[in-house]
Amino acid sequence: MTDSVKYLLDEQALPKTWYNINADLPEPLPPVLHPGTKQPITPDDLAMIFPRAVIEQEMSQIREIEIPEPVREVYRQWRPSPLHRARRLEKALDTPAKIYYKYEGVSPAGSHKPNTAIPQAFYNKQEGVKRITTETGAGQWGSALAFSGAFFGLEIVVYMVKVSFQQKPYRRAFMETFGATCIASPSDTTESGRAILEGRPDSTGSLGIAISEAVEMAARRDDTKYALGSVLNHVLLHQTVIGLEAQRQMEMAGDYPDMVIGCTGGGSNFAGIAFPFLGERLREGRKVDFIAVEPSACPTLTKGKFAYDFGDTAHLTPLVKMYTLGSGFVPPGFHAGGLRYHGMAPQISHLTHLGYIDPRSYNQLECFAAGVQFAKAEGILPAPEANHAVKAAIHEAEKCRESGEAKTILFNLCGHGHFDMQAYMDYMGGKLKDLEYAEGEVAMALAGLPSVP
Amino acid sequence: MTDSVKYLLDEQALPKTWYNINADLPEPLPPVLHPGTKQPITPDDLAMIFPRAVIEQEMSQIREIEIPEPVREVYRQWRPSPLHRARRLEKALDTPAKIYYKYEGVSPAGSHKPNTAIPQAFYNKQEGVKRITTETGAGQWGSALAFSGAFFGLEIVVYMVKVSFQQKPYRRAFMETFGATCIASPSDTTESGRAILEGRPDSTGSLGIAISEAVEMAARRDDTKYALGSVLNHVLLHQTVIGLEAQRQMEMAGDYPDMVIGCTGGGSNFAGIAFPFLGERLREGRKVDFIAVEPSACPTLTKGKFAYDFGDTAHLTPLVKMYTLGSGFVPPGFHAGGLRYHGMAPQISHLTHLGYIDPRSYNQLECFAAGVQFAKAEGILPAPEANHAVKAAIHEAEKCRESGEAKTILFNLCGHGHFDMQAYMDYMGGKLKDLEYAEGEVAMALAGLPSVP
Repeated sequence: MTDSVKYLLDEQALPKTWYNINADLPEPLPPVLHPGTKQPITPDDLAMIFPRAVIEQEMSQIREIEIPEPVREVYRQWRPSPLHRARRLEKALDTPAKIYYKYEGVSPAGSHKPNTAIPQAFYNKQEGVKRITTETGAGQWGSALAFSGAFFGLEIVVYMVKVSFQQKPYRRAFMETFGATCIASPSDTTESGRAILEGRPDSTGSLGIAISEAVEMAARRDDTKYALGSVLNHVLLHQTVIGLEAQRQMEMAGDYPDMVIGCTGGGSNFAGIAFPFLGERLREGRKVDFIAVEPSACPTLTKGKFAYDFGDTAHLTPLVKMYTLGSGFVPPGFHAGGLRYHGMAPQISHLTHLGYIDPRSYNQLECFAAGVQFAKAEGILPAPEANHAVKAAIHEAEKCRESGEAKTILFNLCGHGHFDMQAYMDYMGGKLKDLEYAEGEVAMALAGLPSVP
Repeated sequence: MTDSVKYLLDEQALPKTWYNINADLPEPLPPVLHPGTKQPITPDDLAMIFPRAVIEQEMSQIREIEIPEPVREVYRQWRPSPLHRARRLEKALDTPAKIYYKYEGVSPAGSHKPNTAIPQAFYNKQEGVKRITTETGAGQWGSALAFSGAFFGLEIVVYMVKVSFQQKPYRRAFMETFGATCIASPSDTTESGRAILEGRPDSTGSLGIAISEAVEMAARRDDTKYALGSVLNHVLLHQTVIGLEAQRQMEMAGDYPDMVIGCTGGGSNFAGIAFPFLGERLREGRKVDFIAVEPSACPTLTKGKFAYDFGDTAHLTPLVKMYTLGSGFVPPGFHAGGLRYHGMAPQISHLTHLGYIDPRSYNQLECFAAGVQFAKAEGILPAPEANHAVKAAIHEAEKCRESGEAKTILFNLCGHGHFDMQAYMDYMGGKLKDLEYAEGEVAMALAGLPSVP
């Protein structure tokens, strides 16, 4: 009998609490500021768009936060998710490294996004909300919220970045099958959308614009709240179920990672796998590296500025201190829609600034090549976003081949690529190019950062 | 804590043997006949297109057949697959029935097909074969063989029914990503293909034609064999891993099915879940019903004839006794490509003829409606093929609501619908219609059945 290729926890081992890294930060997070007064925001400021339970989590300093039983019940449909040892990939790479991956593509929406969509839907339902608005880029977040809405009997309205709305009709159909309404953003349903369309009628949209529209719509109606799929503390908190499971699975494997790798758009899947391990480093000094991988064409952590900025284009959101390319930045149209955000989660930005996380960027062609190599060895076709983590893992394993070191690599395979076949077709047909971001545009967007006293 | 929503077996519980129902048949299967001599075929007759190990299994009467360890190693990546209790669906249906489903969509190819693709690739590799040809309709089988080929280092050539080749470029891209070659059938690469194209240059193909092409190509080259994704005994044998796991999982749930339901195209996923339970009925007289669900537009079991027929259009395959609509029958273009076969597995045909299996048919609109209802309740979007099983399960649960009976329903959710979003878009856009098969065409096709002494 060969060694295990996957480590499964039984349902009883599903974590009962999420891990809140705020409790272990060496320095507290810079405060979130009200966009008007530029003073630290209060829970009341957020109550217009978020339910109370979520606001409490957003600001909590408690290390372990209970996962409500109705949320665990839904989680149990596919969680604990499997941890795989990539033995065939190791063999193909001829590396002494041990490569593990946590596979979040087993969720019904095909990615890690339901980990936060479900509790957010639950808390909203509990507080009597009827409708949730949100934005989506690649569509993974919108899909997750759509099916969470179906479970909890909530109406879901998704502002989908127009270019994705057009390029990914199947993602849209997936959301609509679950009863969600999809609106191409910028749209004429909001003031922020109309303002953009007046200036640029042919705008293909951006996450920043779609967020503005969704937030505006939620603020305008009493029975409607807003949900965000990444960036904020409570979202990252919910995702830690990934890393908490992975810790127990690595124990089953009798191993501990030398490095933990995830791709970063807004930061939630990276935080999900990394924070529980990072907490051990912060509390107990365990030696482990953290590699946050982003696309070269939207290099928030590697080329952005650590500064206060808005989360959206119309400047309706609070100001958060984060790595940013400027809220006016619109990245080029590469095929990893989930990684096209101008900012980065404040917690990840803070920990990167303090030196605990090593950011790194790759171009899309090398990421697709890594994804195809991974698929041929492991049988799973990763989402273009996940390919960034795959690329870094392969890169590190190749370094081990050179050095002879048998490092233990853990990465998060945050979703499958079943809805991204056009991207793979373009890649295999030689139609994809590496894209560069416009340095001038970033400079301009950064010059326009809000001044904070 | 609520009751379980899924039952997971650990890796150690992965079956070590497949179950061969030939050992328990009340009457032996009618012999398979050589297409030329019409005498029972010998292993040598099949050696041109199948490896020896597969031929042995095809003809075996041994009840338990060992699953080779290298096959179990690949199985372990996603097997044992989960068994779910559909509690949310039960609630939505307000039924006293208990609904369980075995979910095969967790495999890397998204369906049950790898259960046989992997052993077939393994046996071919073991016997020195370099290349496997096959046919695919919907693309699930081709995808499964493509990734199995990548694992075992075999070249895979897939004849894909032309209409699917055109309608499903993403399925094709999926296969090509794993290194397989896809050829639209009918093609000019084979005599059978050229013969069809001469008569009907605009032919959109059929599974029967694609099988002829794949078999011809395998027969022509020494280093090339052929693999079939359904119908034959050894394929159904490999799929019994589904039902063997489900038996242990139903035990975990403290339950036993009153009925087992699966959709039937060639019959492999139905046999996979049903045969181990059917064996218990045959050996021990356990009371359990078996419902084989097919599309009304290709009603092999419900409207076909139990007779000797060819498996393909060009009459290259042996003659098998089965329910058939005639090998010349081309079904209308409904959206469940995997259920568009003119014949049915001989084992299933035989057991249906003997009264052990109850066949039933549904039209596509009611199947899609059931699929959407299932998705909203359970979060998983089924493949159009699987929707037939879903429809029957919901139908039975509704009957229980009327009668007040708390029956236990087990069905096989054989795959997800991520590559079938066009069908869902058409359905939700009101563009789908129920299709009727041409009765005259079936009468003609049946009139042309070969005469067997």
